[in-house]
Amino acid sequence: MTLKTKERYLESMRDLEADVYLLGKRVPDVTKNGFTRLALEGIGAIYDLTRDPRYRDTMTQRDGQGPFSVYCSIHRSREDLVNRVRVARFLCQRTGVCTASRCCGWDAMNALWHTTFEMDARNGTGYHRRLQRYIAKVRREDLTVAGALTDPKGARSLKPKHQPDPDVYLRIVEERKDGIVLRGAKTMIGGAVGSHEILVQPGAAFSEAERDHAVAAAVPLDADGVTQVVNRQMGDERKLEAGFDKGNVRFGSSESLVVFNDVFVPKERVFMAGETEFTGDVVSKFVLLHRMTLGGCLAGCGDVLTGAAALLAEFNGLSRQLMDRFVEMTYLSEAMYAQALGAAYQGQDTPSGAWFPDPLLANVTKTSVTRLPFEIQRLAEDVGGGMVSCMPSDRDLRSDRVGAFVDKYYRGLRDVTAEKRLRVARLLESMVFGPGKLSTLCMHGGGSPAAASLGIRQLADLESKKEMARRLAGIGD
Amino acid sequence: MTLKTKERYLESMRDLEADVYLLGKRVPDVTKNGFTRLALEGIGAIYDLTRDPRYRDTMTQRDGQGPFSVYCSIHRSREDLVNRVRVARFLCQRTGVCTASRCCGWDAMNALWHTTFEMDARNGTGYHRRLQRYIAKVRREDLTVAGALTDPKGARSLKPKHQPDPDVYLRIVEERKDGIVLRGAKTMIGGAVGSHEILVQPGAAFSEAERDHAVAAAVPLDADGVTQVVNRQMGDERKLEAGFDKGNVRFGSSESLVVFNDVFVPKERVFMAGETEFTGDVVSKFVLLHRMTLGGCLAGCGDVLTGAAALLAEFNGLSRQLMDRFVEMTYLSEAMYAQALGAAYQGQDTPSGAWFPDPLLANVTKTSVTRLPFEIQRLAEDVGGGMVSCMPSDRDLRSDRVGAFVDKYYRGLRDVTAEKRLRVARLLESMVFGPGKLSTLCMHGGGSPAAASLGIRQLADLESKKEMARRLAGIGD
Amino acid sequence: MTLKTKERYLESMRDLEADVYLLGKRVPDVTKNGFTRLALEGIGAIYDLTRDPRYRDTMTQRDGQGPFSVYCSIHRSREDLVNRVRVARFLCQRTGVCTASRCCGWDAMNALWHTTFEMDARNGTGYHRRLQRYIAKVRREDLTVAGALTDPKGARSLKPKHQPDPDVYLRIVEERKDGIVLRGAKTMIGGAVGSHEILVQPGAAFSEAERDHAVAAAVPLDADGVTQVVNRQMGDERKLEAGFDKGNVRFGSSESLVVFNDVFVPKERVFMAGETEFTGDVVSKFVLLHRMTLGGCLAGCGDVLTGAAALLAEFNGLSRQLMDRFVEMTYLSEAMYAQALGAAYQGQDTPSGAWFPDPLLANVTKTSVTRLPFEIQRLAEDVGGGMVSCMPSDRDLRSDRVGAFVDKYYRGLRDVTAEKRLRVARLLESMVFGPGKLSTLCMHGGGSPAAASLGIRQLADLESKKEMARRLAGIGD
Amino acid sequence: MTLKTKERYLESMRDLEADVYLLGKRVPDVTKNGFTRLALEGIGAIYDLTRDPRYRDTMTQRDGQGPFSVYCSIHRSREDLVNRVRVARFLCQRTGVCTASRCCGWDAMNALWHTTFEMDARNGTGYHRRLQRYIAKVRREDLTVAGALTDPKGARSLKPKHQPDPDVYLRIVEERKDGIVLRGAKTMIGGAVGSHEILVQPGAAFSEAERDHAVAAAVPLDADGVTQVVNRQMGDERKLEAGFDKGNVRFGSSESLVVFNDVFVPKERVFMAGETEFTGDVVSKFVLLHRMTLGGCLAGCGDVLTGAAALLAEFNGLSRQLMDRFVEMTYLSEAMYAQALGAAYQGQDTPSGAWFPDPLLANVTKTSVTRLPFEIQRLAEDVGGGMVSCMPSDRDLRSDRVGAFVDKYYRGLRDVTAEKRLRVARLLESMVFGPGKLSTLCMHGGGSPAAASLGIRQLADLESKKEMARRLAGIGD
Repeated sequence: MTLKTKERYLESMRDLEADVYLLGKRVPDVTKNGFTRLALEGIGAIYDLTRDPRYRDTMTQRDGQGPFSVYCSIHRSREDLVNRVRVARFLCQRTGVCTASRCCGWDAMNALWHTTFEMDARNGTGYHRRLQRYIAKVRREDLTVAGALTDPKGARSLKPKHQPDPDVYLRIVEERKDGIVLRGAKTMIGGAVGSHEILVQPGAAFSEAERDHAVAAAVPLDADGVTQVVNRQMGDERKLEAGFDKGNVRFGSSESLVVFNDVFVPKERVFMAGETEFTGDVVSKFVLLHRMTLGGCLAGCGDVLTGAAALLAEFNGLSRQLMDRFVEMTYLSEAMYAQALGAAYQGQDTPSGAWFPDPLLANVTKTSVTRLPFEIQRLAEDVGGGMVSCMPSDRDLRSDRVGAFVDKYYRGLRDVTAEKRLRVARLLESMVFGPGKLSTLCMHGGGSPAAASLGIRQLADLESKKEMARRLAGIGD
Repeated sequence: MTLKTKERYLESMRDLEADVYLLGKRVPDVTKNGFTRLALEGIGAIYDLTRDPRYRDTMTQRDGQGPFSVYCSIHRSREDLVNRVRVARFLCQRTGVCTASRCCGWDAMNALWHTTFEMDARNGTGYHRRLQRYIAKVRREDLTVAGALTDPKGARSLKPKHQPDPDVYLRIVEERKDGIVLRGAKTMIGGAVGSHEILVQPGAAFSEAERDHAVAAAVPLDADGVTQVVNRQMGDERKLEAGFDKGNVRFGSSESLVVFNDVFVPKERVFMAGETEFTGDVVSKFVLLHRMTLGGCLAGCGDVLTGAAALLAEFNGLSRQLMDRFVEMTYLSEAMYAQALGAAYQGQDTPSGAWFPDPLLANVTKTSVTRLPFEIQRLAEDVGGGMVSCMPSDRDLRSDRVGAFVDKYYRGLRDVTAEKRLRVARLLESMVFGPGKLSTLCMHGGGSPAAASLGIRQLADLESKKEMARRLAGIGD
Repeated sequence: MTLKTKERYLESMRDLEADVYLLGKRVPDVTKNGFTRLALEGIGAIYDLTRDPRYRDTMTQRDGQGPFSVYCSIHRSREDLVNRVRVARFLCQRTGVCTASRCCGWDAMNALWHTTFEMDARNGTGYHRRLQRYIAKVRREDLTVAGALTDPKGARSLKPKHQPDPDVYLRIVEERKDGIVLRGAKTMIGGAVGSHEILVQPGAAFSEAERDHAVAAAVPLDADGVTQVVNRQMGDERKLEAGFDKGNVRFGSSESLVVFNDVFVPKERVFMAGETEFTGDVVSKFVLLHRMTLGGCLAGCGDVLTGAAALLAEFNGLSRQLMDRFVEMTYLSEAMYAQALGAAYQGQDTPSGAWFPDPLLANVTKTSVTRLPFEIQRLAEDVGGGMVSCMPSDRDLRSDRVGAFVDKYYRGLRDVTAEKRLRVARLLESMVFGPGKLSTLCMHGGGSPAAASLGIRQLADLESKKEMARRLAGIGD
Repeated sequence: MTLKTKERYLESMRDLEADVYLLGKRVPDVTKNGFTRLALEGIGAIYDLTRDPRYRDTMTQRDGQGPFSVYCSIHRSREDLVNRVRVARFLCQRTGVCTASRCCGWDAMNALWHTTFEMDARNGTGYHRRLQRYIAKVRREDLTVAGALTDPKGARSLKPKHQPDPDVYLRIVEERKDGIVLRGAKTMIGGAVGSHEILVQPGAAFSEAERDHAVAAAVPLDADGVTQVVNRQMGDERKLEAGFDKGNVRFGSSESLVVFNDVFVPKERVFMAGETEFTGDVVSKFVLLHRMTLGGCLAGCGDVLTGAAALLAEFNGLSRQLMDRFVEMTYLSEAMYAQALGAAYQGQDTPSGAWFPDPLLANVTKTSVTRLPFEIQRLAEDVGGGMVSCMPSDRDLRSDRVGAFVDKYYRGLRDVTAEKRLRVARLLESMVFGPGKLSTLCMHGGGSPAAASLGIRQLADLESKKEMARRLAGIGD
């Protein structure tokens, strides 16, 4: 069976020896560094759960070669889209973090599945076949593939072609007979540090004059010229420590700047090269999937945060008094989930066979996702009490000098030790302010709130609504 | 074919000669009175659209006897539940009003389908067969059946058995060999004035000591002892006028107090009589359907209101400046719709064969429905401008003395006459403050916001969420 | 003493014989027509309370001639501004309605006090002296003066000078030696029907090419060529009935279109004629006062609505269960009030001696006022229950045929008759949907939400805030 | 002159040699440790600005001995309360952090001023005189005095007298002739690490059986038995680094657990000992001041955050597109400020001569403060873009290996270097997620949201509001 164990996955990441930097220093083995290890554990959870027989229907699909991870599947039905949302919620419930790399790679494969089909149909190119072969390899080797859209973009008010430095949008600097050479970067790439490969695609709709930027390709993360600079989020340092101050003691996430410093990509890994007229399409297909899926992710993280808040309230002896907050948190999480399901069920297929969510409802889900989690977080802070912003460290608890004080003064309800209370308060803290905070994934993932609004604006069909009003008001034409 | 034309429906209502009162006076012919006529036109729209070949798949089902209205169907699949939501939105888009009678009757038939099946299975009674026969008759005669839950309830802080006047909950005052005698009332009954029959069922979970109140039965609205007092809403008087001040010039809705003053109901029309242990179940099944469906209704009414606002802005020359409001209104409507779809798709079947929505998501949809439409209304008032609260009447426009002034000073953008502007402003007004206001249906339909919160509380499963948090915080047991 | 009794005020209004139209017909005596009478009672309450010794400090000021109504005073201190807000809240608590005419006249007198002073200082004109004489007369005769800014405006996307019909902004059509002739209209004029005079002033900042529109003048409402068309709001008809369905059985409000059909105004009543460079200033001074004051008005109406909701809950036996709603309603009302007080206390004087609120905080108050009352209304509907949208009329209660049913089935907690319950439910209804609804005054009074946002934008001083950020981020220049 | 320079203040803190622990280790010199130094700089800013002649009127008062810091003044007028709010906003604008110690000490001195006066009046004790002497010393020596209310509280569902460990509420374990011995702790004490003394007072209303807990006293922070455990917040570690990743590179704040391990306090420093009947009063007076003042603090921090967001948008070339967000952020900040001013101006004096804010409006301000800053933060995250959660560290920027990449790919609009952009993004990050996040001060400072709601509930005066409704509905008694 091709499905990797978590251990095998970790080994493969160690063996990859990608060029990774953290806090200005090279990370020689990503499975050893506390920070990157936690990120790998997050992705590792996918490998674990995929092999768990209880979740086989959700986490795997089959083809002639046997079962493969759902994370390298193409959505072929309404049910597949719904499952996409369910998987997102499930993973977030289990890990409390964003395991973005496999998700974004999944989105990118689906978006390119559709767009390569369309390009070939129009231009007679052979991209779709190439992509099929590439996906077959990914399935066979059970690879984690990061999906990468976002370019650094420089000055946002200037178009790509007017940027002083053209490299702020990834581009082809040379076309050779056997491949292309890439220069530039992709930024905020979730889970790159735990990925085998990166699948880049355009991050914006480019015009004819910007053809060099119209590029999609798969690049192994150990390729010559690829360098990752792992981002630093609030609280990341704690992941380098042993204690429980990191909050989520089992799983982490990561984002990176991935630099392409004149990287050669052989032809069979190139899925778009210059077809600017398809760049808008491939962006839109990617973000639709992402905007829908976020409803599942945030519901799952909302569940964990609701649980953390409820647990802390229980430890404080306040479960009953704060029940209305838990009900509201549940409402907010489920509202996002229900919207994502609605977007999935209203989905449609495409000539390529790939299914995509309803564009309007996907944008609606995304819009909710940029608002509701903030209220969930606010309620969590309300429930958590002042403690969530003001508590001693686990090192204080273990200190010879002040440990006894912490132990004495941080106890909760009978049998609730200070450590238990601090552990859950730290988890809550990390999901509100720290590297697991909901807003990291919800506000800008899949595009900004403004982009989602624009999507709704384009699909609102005000003319048909005006016509409804005209009829009822008795205004003839 | 059994499907009635609208004309035939109106005739049948005229012929029914129900005992209807409005503003303290008897309405001898409900098709003639301006107020009741508009309500009948709302229900009439269902009859019209049901016979329209374009909507056959949505609006009809078939059995051995041929096609029948979807409004007398039992939901037999996930798709049926989804269709329920779609029909609700469609009708509201077409009419701008709540055509509650057929909807609530639909809910009541489905709830009783399930509960009669369960009662018979437990007690060996024959209610389910009776109900089947009754529904067959409703289909055959294409009847509009009002569904009725809500009792007057007297002092809310007292249980039914402690009420000074036991009649404030509908009850059986006599059991005869051939039937039962009902006394009491059902209140806020949507569309009763346009219905042939009323299907009453318990409005609360009753205890053993309250068995007289555990009653479900179908009663023709012209039965001896049944009297309707039609409620008076803000702006209702305008429906008695000819002009456009009523806003929605084509359709209306209505609610009534329906009094049962010792009404005899023959046995074959009785579907529950004393089975208090099933009262909670039948209430819950009814409200689940209603709470889900409201997401469709409010989206549909939201569409019309968005259209009215967009049209008024167009007439004022402000379409571009106010675009962000229309985007937000669209977002809010679609968010409710998406949630209703989610609740439908997550639905489940029951041993009786009837399907019901996911209880948690139905309550979530209802909760959204008690909040979002108010923001839609607020935005409509923002867009509408001061005019929506301050405008002359159509009689002023037609007056010899001041008509010319109104015509001159209420013109909008080129070619937009005062009448056009006033008509759409009146429509908007009626949907925000008047009898078509969104909040009439959304706030208390299917139960209060507090009831929906309670539903979420019961289904929130905080224990499993605490367990998720415990694992990630490293708190063992 | 010059302070009029309410009776004397009503007589004076009857004697005025203004040319008033309602629902297309002339109203020969505004003290007799049920609709206009209620509006006059609202203003009459001011006369009553002004003579009440308990409120002397709040409701009156004194000059050499003795006491006069605070409604014709010029704000001469921070305390006067604060008193302005207090008076607004007090009147709304007492009447539950907007008594706009005296308020807007008050604003107009203050705005013109300032602007005439400035015009004279710059141009050597004699407007300020004229205005002083006019105000002295108003005080001496204790007149109600409506303030009027808003022009019909035609197509909003066109500037005044490009309007096909120049009359859609009030204008001087002729300048004579002894005065000017006005043509056009002012629209949505609160309380005109209960006013002796109207004080018009520019409703927008006009450019040099629009000098005819730069006009301020006081016109008696019985002047030749002045016609009022009273607007029709939802539920107005009930004011023509005897019963309690009108909700607020004691007071009403009104708005009118006031048409100036070539009205001659003698010179001593003209306070601006062509000075376009001061039009922006006079608008801004008027709206600042109005935007601040609304915080008091809406708090006062919020108080009444909170009281109505609490009373209905008491009658239903639900006071305790709904306490959180009353707390929230109170919070929202007081938040607006506190902001208005802040705007008043931060106020500043002007060279003319008149004080005006802090511009930024006045716009902030107004912005709150366009949002919070809608939540108050939503909570009132929540508390009110389905009944607020579904109840029989008072005529049903008094009907021989169905009165007993209504009486029986609408009783509440012990001793609460149906009439008591219906009366308070009708009051609540009228303040949420009817002519007393909060949103009539809050959304567009003193300008639209967009106008308030623009005000905040102009005063936000982002540069100084960026400088704060620069220092703390260690970014030098 | 007694006003200390910042340098003298820092020396005095170094000389104090309090027993301070951070991350489990003793901090031998709080002016050297990066973390504590930044906290001292925050308080140091008060010393700096107090001596700045430009701010003399705001920052100082005078008595017979000359000028003293406003932070040790008793509010003696409405203007003093307003100044309190202004000072709060000013300090937060200048430092971007909460300089809680001097604020809370200020509150505690005022609350005790009032309560000691009342105790003496009732019981003939001599507390007030003692307190006066103590305050005179604080002024003369220009001391920073932390104010301390909050006890660890153990199981919240148990009353103090039922706690298994009585020490979870600070208490007198021994009364000696010359003083008392304290045992227990005060928790979440802002700025303790930068304070000379701590002024403890009851944190709850205690009953007769809990008299040991009714204690107020001033304790030097270097007293025998006093130990501080400094809390660890998200991102605190960065304060130990040199670079700009800490966001706010100039100022910090801190909170501590302050343990009293059998600490002797001489009589002249004791201001309450056993007077349980006054414990509710002193808590209430303290929190009123705090709840009002927060409106100023959060407005000030809101200003800085708005500035940071506007600056980042400028660097990205998006100022115009995001203007509506800055307007909304400004609105929210000013709304809190206006409410605080309202609460101040409605303040009242007490027999002791000390003034306190209006209790209802102070609770209203606090309620706003638990909500609006979260929306400000959300908008800041929206404006900030994905970058705020995903950016390289300053060490990456300075790295030989990847520094050039960071420099190249993080540039903004022309002339905006990567460092400038990263600096302001880090500032924004620290104010949203990090130790300077608004919610640290706003949610639980001065009590929980539930406590503020309770305050509103007690002061809502629903009966008078019901009476208003009764009159307008025509319901007689």
